[in-house]
Amino acid sequence: MSNDKQDKQFVTEITPQGEDFSRWYIDVIKKAELMDYSPVRGCIVFRPDGYEIWEHIQQDLDRRFKETGHRNAYFPLFIPESFFEKEKEHIEGFNPELPWVTEAGGDKLEERLAIRPTSETMFGHMYSKWIQSYRDLPVLINQWANVVRWEKRTLPFLRTSEFLWQEGHTAHETETEAREETMRMLEVYRDFVESFLAIPVITGQKSPSEKFAGARDTYSIEAMMKDGRAVQAGTSHFMGTNFAEAFEIQYLSRENTQEYAHTTSWGVSTRLIGALIMVHGDDRGLALPPKVAPKQVMIIPIGPPKTRDMVVGRADELFAELKKAGVRVGIDDRADVRPGWKFNEYEMRGIPVRLEIGPRDMENGVCVLVSRITGEKKQVALENIVTEVQNMLEQVQQEMYDRALAFREENMHEVDTLDEMKAIMEEKRGFFIAGWDGTIESEAKVKEETGATIRNIPFQLDVQKEKCLVTGEPAKHTVVFARAY
Amino acid sequence: MSNDKQDKQFVTEITPQGEDFSRWYIDVIKKAELMDYSPVRGCIVFRPDGYEIWEHIQQDLDRRFKETGHRNAYFPLFIPESFFEKEKEHIEGFNPELPWVTEAGGDKLEERLAIRPTSETMFGHMYSKWIQSYRDLPVLINQWANVVRWEKRTLPFLRTSEFLWQEGHTAHETETEAREETMRMLEVYRDFVESFLAIPVITGQKSPSEKFAGARDTYSIEAMMKDGRAVQAGTSHFMGTNFAEAFEIQYLSRENTQEYAHTTSWGVSTRLIGALIMVHGDDRGLALPPKVAPKQVMIIPIGPPKTRDMVVGRADELFAELKKAGVRVGIDDRADVRPGWKFNEYEMRGIPVRLEIGPRDMENGVCVLVSRITGEKKQVALENIVTEVQNMLEQVQQEMYDRALAFREENMHEVDTLDEMKAIMEEKRGFFIAGWDGTIESEAKVKEETGATIRNIPFQLDVQKEKCLVTGEPAKHTVVFARAY
Repeated sequence: MSNDKQDKQFVTEITPQGEDFSRWYIDVIKKAELMDYSPVRGCIVFRPDGYEIWEHIQQDLDRRFKETGHRNAYFPLFIPESFFEKEKEHIEGFNPELPWVTEAGGDKLEERLAIRPTSETMFGHMYSKWIQSYRDLPVLINQWANVVRWEKRTLPFLRTSEFLWQEGHTAHETETEAREETMRMLEVYRDFVESFLAIPVITGQKSPSEKFAGARDTYSIEAMMKDGRAVQAGTSHFMGTNFAEAFEIQYLSRENTQEYAHTTSWGVSTRLIGALIMVHGDDRGLALPPKVAPKQVMIIPIGPPKTRDMVVGRADELFAELKKAGVRVGIDDRADVRPGWKFNEYEMRGIPVRLEIGPRDMENGVCVLVSRITGEKKQVALENIVTEVQNMLEQVQQEMYDRALAFREENMHEVDTLDEMKAIMEEKRGFFIAGWDGTIESEAKVKEETGATIRNIPFQLDVQKEKCLVTGEPAKHTVVFARAY
Repeated sequence: MSNDKQDKQFVTEITPQGEDFSRWYIDVIKKAELMDYSPVRGCIVFRPDGYEIWEHIQQDLDRRFKETGHRNAYFPLFIPESFFEKEKEHIEGFNPELPWVTEAGGDKLEERLAIRPTSETMFGHMYSKWIQSYRDLPVLINQWANVVRWEKRTLPFLRTSEFLWQEGHTAHETETEAREETMRMLEVYRDFVESFLAIPVITGQKSPSEKFAGARDTYSIEAMMKDGRAVQAGTSHFMGTNFAEAFEIQYLSRENTQEYAHTTSWGVSTRLIGALIMVHGDDRGLALPPKVAPKQVMIIPIGPPKTRDMVVGRADELFAELKKAGVRVGIDDRADVRPGWKFNEYEMRGIPVRLEIGPRDMENGVCVLVSRITGEKKQVALENIVTEVQNMLEQVQQEMYDRALAFREENMHEVDTLDEMKAIMEEKRGFFIAGWDGTIESEAKVKEETGATIRNIPFQLDVQKEKCLVTGEPAKHTVVFARAY
């Protein structure tokens, strides 16, 4: 295949975002080898580059959980059917999505076992055994696990039948402490998603119809994708005593009375990988923030065959130096592949910084760093390579956040009426800020006519709307509407 | 409750090993809060102290896997029934242990889905898609996951229906490379288990009747528990082209021919936690090697009430200093619990080193370190506390290995005949080194009459037996027999 042909094939393999965003997404994640479809409906294979993104997410979040006093544990995959019947809202929420094990070891089971869609009930059951007295509280446990929700319509990473997540479950003496925990973990998520994934989010409370099945209050962080849709990037729930009552999590209080514990739960999942791609990617492919990128820097030696050995030798030294400094660095020194092809390839794979070095650079004691996100080229001194690379990685991380934030600001629309919202929607993507009278009916009408749901009731907004966009009645809340993944 | 009563209750709660080893084991893991039984048959809950042992195992092994060129990925939990039929030995090996999902999302499934007992077949299926040419090889992927085998008789950690493990699956151009990989990973396991878990192991090859369902050759590391039984602590399999043929993992060779890849797989599981407890524990409870212990050092301030604030203040400083140096340290400064009770408690929990500090110690600028495993007390200068603690942790790690090795040596019995083996077995626990003629019949006869199986054919033995213990025919191999968990 000629080089021209290579390049052309390359470009045509990714559908432009503007043409078909969903196809762009699938093209990119397949081509960048983040995932593959499996023979089981709705279940994907996380390939090494996709899974490593999850590993970096896990590592950083896990540290944050431990710093806030949580420990990890592991609870069984199977949930007895009877457990779901203890919390009524919970079973109604999850029943349609459960896969059931009915046979095992050659025998029919007496009681069907669900594959966990969440471990709420199993934690509840065990907590009722472990918690006796106020001295046992708080209990602060997190679990990293696979869960299954049999989804009718699936989309890799964003909505798959099996997915990976973490679920924190805590129990407390008082409502105040449990509410503080709920907010603490929401804030852990916000800070993590913004600083580590470079995704700006809107924090707020879910409307009653969108809250977790069995929760008293649900809070979320919501991110805007490049097609203007929302992804709920993390949730934190205050359960009140709902689960404690259902599972009899009671403790002897300081006043010697039996009380129900106040519980919380909170989780993020591999859908964060989907959000990451849809927030930062472009028509050239993936773009990964340095903190989460499997490879942060790719070194590509350039120049004619006669200087090749010399340049590759120096490139290997740079590789070793950067690796030693903790930079996740790769090198592509293949002689039979053109640099131009490599540039495209690693841009498509979203590697934040490319390091080019050729014979003339070597003479001058320099090399060139290229930012994936801005295309900026910077000549830097080889003797400062570690610092220069680290600076550029920081800069790219910040620029990616800034760009995502600017994009979101551009695509926030303030509306007064449903008609106005529908009119804007015909031309523009994005989130809609509007007043809401707090009724299920108004919320439902917006959804019916636009497909948009209340993402959350933001804690902080520059504007407060006075009237409901549907009824014109006084607004109870100013909310964010959007179509969501 | 008086202090005497506290102490007495404490001691009587753990059955002595000599009285009933199985009860000792269950008493210890429950009392040390490593696990709890779940409402699902054969599935346990890994409580934080149990799970953290697994986290340390994961972290260290994962580093070793990555250093040997492997990457992690994640494959689906569900395996279509048809997949098991592709490799005949494989289905025969696993069929009796599979749980089946037959309904999901409210509908009966057209094809039943097994919960993975291992992902061999799913890796095989995906590798057949990913591998086209010798340029794609080797593929070196590992997965950390939960797997399920519906066991009739279960024992926490050692044999549970659901357990956690890692499974490496690799594909290679040549048999030589695949065999090298098989041995490389066996060696990774040996070194890890010996140096990190302080458990000496015997490396060798499994007899044909004990090899993995579908493998050409299986290799294992075998450890001796304190009751003389064996635990298979890790296995590495050379698959030949068995799975490649079953799943059509073919590649275009350098000679432009279609060839089957040579594959391997290797794994260790949470049964390592069980082995850890049974190798090192004693009548006082758990004993954890420092490298894997959730808490390596527990600080206990002592002395009369009037000096309490001063001593606790200094203890807090030591805590901070040790923590900063990367030591996993805890402090128990409760005023309403006697030091003696605390000593027992943390010995029972297996914390490798106790740090005692009282008012007189403070005057002298010293504190006392106590080894969990030898009971040795050492007075050390506070100004060198970090070094002293680190030295003692290293010493305890080494002593635990040495003790376990000495125990194993004491309990290895060389035998010439089955009758001799049976006679020794009536009085002694342990492993038996004997000649074996290589026939299934002789192996089966030993098992039938003693319950012992061939653990493996060791690579290195000081002795080579000339005759089979059963038939007296020339021995094909010198092997290790033992009853096993």
